[in-house]
Amino acid sequence: MDITSQVNTAWMLTATVAVTLMLPGLALYYGGLSRTKNILNTMMIVFGGFAVTAVLWVLFGYGLTLGDSVGGAGLIGDPTSLFGMQALLGAETPEGAVPPILIAVFQLIFAGLTVGIIGGAVEGRMKFSSWLIFSGAWATLVYFPVAHWVFAFDAPDGATTGGWIANSLHAIDFAGGTAVHMNAGVAALVLALFLGKRQHFPNVGRPGNLPIAIVGGGLLLVGWYGFNGGSSGGINDSAGIAVANTLIAACAGLLGWLVVERIVRKAATSLGAISGILGGLVGITPAANSVSPGGALSIGFLAGIVAFAALGLKEKLGYDDALDAVAIHMFPGIFGTLAIGFLADPASPAGARGILFGGDWGLLGTQSVAIVSVFVYTFLVTALIAWLLKITVGLRVTDNTETIGLDITLHAETAYDLDDVRS
Amino acid sequence: MDITSQVNTAWMLTATVAVTLMLPGLALYYGGLSRTKNILNTMMIVFGGFAVTAVLWVLFGYGLTLGDSVGGAGLIGDPTSLFGMQALLGAETPEGAVPPILIAVFQLIFAGLTVGIIGGAVEGRMKFSSWLIFSGAWATLVYFPVAHWVFAFDAPDGATTGGWIANSLHAIDFAGGTAVHMNAGVAALVLALFLGKRQHFPNVGRPGNLPIAIVGGGLLLVGWYGFNGGSSGGINDSAGIAVANTLIAACAGLLGWLVVERIVRKAATSLGAISGILGGLVGITPAANSVSPGGALSIGFLAGIVAFAALGLKEKLGYDDALDAVAIHMFPGIFGTLAIGFLADPASPAGARGILFGGDWGLLGTQSVAIVSVFVYTFLVTALIAWLLKITVGLRVTDNTETIGLDITLHAETAYDLDDVRS
Amino acid sequence: MDITSQVNTAWMLTATVAVTLMLPGLALYYGGLSRTKNILNTMMIVFGGFAVTAVLWVLFGYGLTLGDSVGGAGLIGDPTSLFGMQALLGAETPEGAVPPILIAVFQLIFAGLTVGIIGGAVEGRMKFSSWLIFSGAWATLVYFPVAHWVFAFDAPDGATTGGWIANSLHAIDFAGGTAVHMNAGVAALVLALFLGKRQHFPNVGRPGNLPIAIVGGGLLLVGWYGFNGGSSGGINDSAGIAVANTLIAACAGLLGWLVVERIVRKAATSLGAISGILGGLVGITPAANSVSPGGALSIGFLAGIVAFAALGLKEKLGYDDALDAVAIHMFPGIFGTLAIGFLADPASPAGARGILFGGDWGLLGTQSVAIVSVFVYTFLVTALIAWLLKITVGLRVTDNTETIGLDITLHAETAYDLDDVRS
Repeated sequence: MDITSQVNTAWMLTATVAVTLMLPGLALYYGGLSRTKNILNTMMIVFGGFAVTAVLWVLFGYGLTLGDSVGGAGLIGDPTSLFGMQALLGAETPEGAVPPILIAVFQLIFAGLTVGIIGGAVEGRMKFSSWLIFSGAWATLVYFPVAHWVFAFDAPDGATTGGWIANSLHAIDFAGGTAVHMNAGVAALVLALFLGKRQHFPNVGRPGNLPIAIVGGGLLLVGWYGFNGGSSGGINDSAGIAVANTLIAACAGLLGWLVVERIVRKAATSLGAISGILGGLVGITPAANSVSPGGALSIGFLAGIVAFAALGLKEKLGYDDALDAVAIHMFPGIFGTLAIGFLADPASPAGARGILFGGDWGLLGTQSVAIVSVFVYTFLVTALIAWLLKITVGLRVTDNTETIGLDITLHAETAYDLDDVRS
Repeated sequence: MDITSQVNTAWMLTATVAVTLMLPGLALYYGGLSRTKNILNTMMIVFGGFAVTAVLWVLFGYGLTLGDSVGGAGLIGDPTSLFGMQALLGAETPEGAVPPILIAVFQLIFAGLTVGIIGGAVEGRMKFSSWLIFSGAWATLVYFPVAHWVFAFDAPDGATTGGWIANSLHAIDFAGGTAVHMNAGVAALVLALFLGKRQHFPNVGRPGNLPIAIVGGGLLLVGWYGFNGGSSGGINDSAGIAVANTLIAACAGLLGWLVVERIVRKAATSLGAISGILGGLVGITPAANSVSPGGALSIGFLAGIVAFAALGLKEKLGYDDALDAVAIHMFPGIFGTLAIGFLADPASPAGARGILFGGDWGLLGTQSVAIVSVFVYTFLVTALIAWLLKITVGLRVTDNTETIGLDITLHAETAYDLDDVRS
Repeated sequence: MDITSQVNTAWMLTATVAVTLMLPGLALYYGGLSRTKNILNTMMIVFGGFAVTAVLWVLFGYGLTLGDSVGGAGLIGDPTSLFGMQALLGAETPEGAVPPILIAVFQLIFAGLTVGIIGGAVEGRMKFSSWLIFSGAWATLVYFPVAHWVFAFDAPDGATTGGWIANSLHAIDFAGGTAVHMNAGVAALVLALFLGKRQHFPNVGRPGNLPIAIVGGGLLLVGWYGFNGGSSGGINDSAGIAVANTLIAACAGLLGWLVVERIVRKAATSLGAISGILGGLVGITPAANSVSPGGALSIGFLAGIVAFAALGLKEKLGYDDALDAVAIHMFPGIFGTLAIGFLADPASPAGARGILFGGDWGLLGTQSVAIVSVFVYTFLVTALIAWLLKITVGLRVTDNTETIGLDITLHAETAYDLDDVRS
């Protein structure tokens, strides 16, 4: 490795460490929001979905996502020479670049987390076996192709071609507003619809352990630096601004949510604080290197409000998105991707010009095409997977299992033994 | 960016990731120490104060703190050309340096955490709205100026001038013994005095969730590497020794506290273990690059004892520093800053010579001037802010709200739903 | 420092930050698995053992472990010129290398964590004072020598000589399969035998707080990147593959455990998920830079199964390894070290050739010698320490203390105050 490769590698190793914090972060966030009788099941959904995806990634997902596009069509990568990631062992690192094995593991984590986000929709009523099968099928049929569209760039020397959104449409999605957050959010919506509502919805009980959810939210915040900052691919102008915008949007998201929540519901909640942070983070994800700090402030603040507003829809429209994967990921993911069309600052590393900076409406159109394409594809294929599962192994546990709780019935354990707590 | 800039950037990005762990760390540490009825309120105080500070930092705090000193007087930076941090977008990175946007976000975190530390004094009795206003006012009137004094160095080429403590007094405060820890601790003392004691003080009940406090303490420990190590500004001799001294002082602080606690109170507690770690960390913060590993061992051990000894003062003097921000931050912060006068090792990167290494008493005098200046300024201005808030919006919740707890009354939620815990 | 040194330092600083996550990670993992009446005691065992080891490391442990081998025999380092690590202050950084002070603190953390792992065997029945003495004695008499054998390499210029396993035997133990995990696991076995079983073993009650254990497990997973990735010593071919293999083995370990647990016990548990992750991580630790991603998949999957299978032994053989340090660390540590003999891929950075890649049986023999040597030495010396403690200060608390719980009796505190939890 030359020295430029080395310095880029130093940061990408760090980003890999950081982004992995999001795995326990997501599990604990969702776990803490679950009802006490399901907290362990919810955490296993995140860990289990991640692990299944990781193994498939090693076997063929890496090739499907980042392999040379089949026929140069930009639709799917060719895994044939990349099975088991074996070819990456001892592969030469291109000049100034990062070792391919490191990119492979960094992107593996994106895949696993995207599957995990979907798990927020299924609390308390999905068969664990069915979830694991869904994870593998969805990763293969939805995530790997969509990530190929968005994250696989043509090689500079033309040796390999990548996905159509990145290279033909030229939409801006820095770290996954479409491929990760909207993608997972749409899948969560579909799965919630196929699963049906929890018993007594919308009166389903309260989060069992908010402090644990806040542990998770904190790890997600820190891990997001790796997610967004690492999407720079190395030490360049994008890395610093992405990290700065990430934190700024998170703080603005907290304030956006709390201000509106205080006005509408008369109380600013801690769950709202964390939800606002996450909404802001999702919003800035596609835009982290294309807007100014002031733009990040605006996107974060508004994304917090968007997420809050989206909450109300689940009761109104009657889908039971239990832990709000749709409200926190789908809506702010769409919002942030569109906001680039307005707020892209030509002085930023991405160099695009949004409408508010005198740009034309073309960028907004491009962003919209990316959103609609991913939305439609994901909606349809996820529905197909869910329907096939429903008519074969079944999606839903029995009523009795749901009433008793999934921890003791499916996993033979409970979260706490507080018998000897003393007062 | 040249390659030296890049390598320095790699570390400062890492330090930024690490130091952000201190945000959830502080929230969880304080939250776990709160009584169960206030745990969420306490965590929101940390997150909310941080977010308000962050937004003000982007708007004008960065300029007030790190902008060119107004009139070259070293008292406050000039924000006029730096509003919204917009000027940092696309700013050229000076040779060998780190992108200004990255320094800006790293220092933003220092500001937000310093405000958060103060929150340890107000558990269970402060209006949340009043706290948010206090956060913004205190950041603007106290933190930004004091951080300018201590952290704004003159530019090497003389293009900009910085603060008087860093550049005229030449006191040694590597990572914020005065500007962060003592500063926050003094403010906590003042706020505790203006707020008054909690009901039934000193018999106020026990920490609600020590394991959560230990989660927080653990994240604080790891995040502190970013805090101290990142204060090196890049990959240089200071970074390694700062990281080493940080861990050594933390371990010694734990032992210092526990040994004395075991002798005085007949039991070594887990709260004492974490408090000792934090005391040791605060103590080494100003001194991390000016003492040897043996010096760090001494400072950490003694700072643990100092923090333990300071605990007793709150009952004796009658201020209700609920979660011990004064004992853990103010006293060890002062101690560590003074200890440099004795223990500074000329072989260390700072190159100063303490009294025990044959130096004269001048360094101790310099350190004392820094301490007294910050103490007096912070005490007076914080008192002014607190007094103004008290006579306007009011500082304190009603007696009934305090008795019931702030989570349910102010935030309309409670930390746990343990109804379906099974035994 | 030259630029190569700087870039290596950037990564080793990061690895140091990451690996420190394992300190709270281990404390919380073990704490959450403890019964509620002992959770704080268990966490103090981890933190206390770490702190004692850290202080001894600074005083003389660094010299014993990484100092020039006494008489060139490869048995123990010479601490005489390295007391207090004072010689490292201002020491020149060799060309292309990392500052010695940074290596010293990175390796300090390995020492402290290894001691902490042993603490998993003693839950609920060991005197805290006796544990602290044990920690210091074991670090000095077992860890420092064994780490010298395995981790002290001869200087390239021959200026200093290192340990016999690394330099004469040439066994492959990348990050501590023998020196850390098997070592701690063997000590845990011995200590469990000397301590005896807990009251009512094997009916000892359930883990008190599984979500806290999962917080800990998550931090361990992320910290392990620092553990394995940092064992590369800098930015080189080993770093990327080590990080990738670490995550892959963890995911495979989860699946390995859960598949077998589901078949044998009819339920896949969350404790099993975390245990499988840890088993996979332990298994890959010695092998992280000598196998392919596919090899990591195999080692992780099988190590998860090995750990699950080892669980049954404690009831069968009657040692009360309370929190499964033996099952999770000793067995997968041995397994991973041996697996290198089969799975070492000559295309990997280590360049060794395992039996499945056409290598001869010599490598497997070498690995076995390392295992047997460390096993026998650790078993005997740990037994000597435990026996001496048993006949002097005593190892075990009174029956009454054990029944009531160690938190309230030894530390005068309890984990939770849930009096004002509202439903």
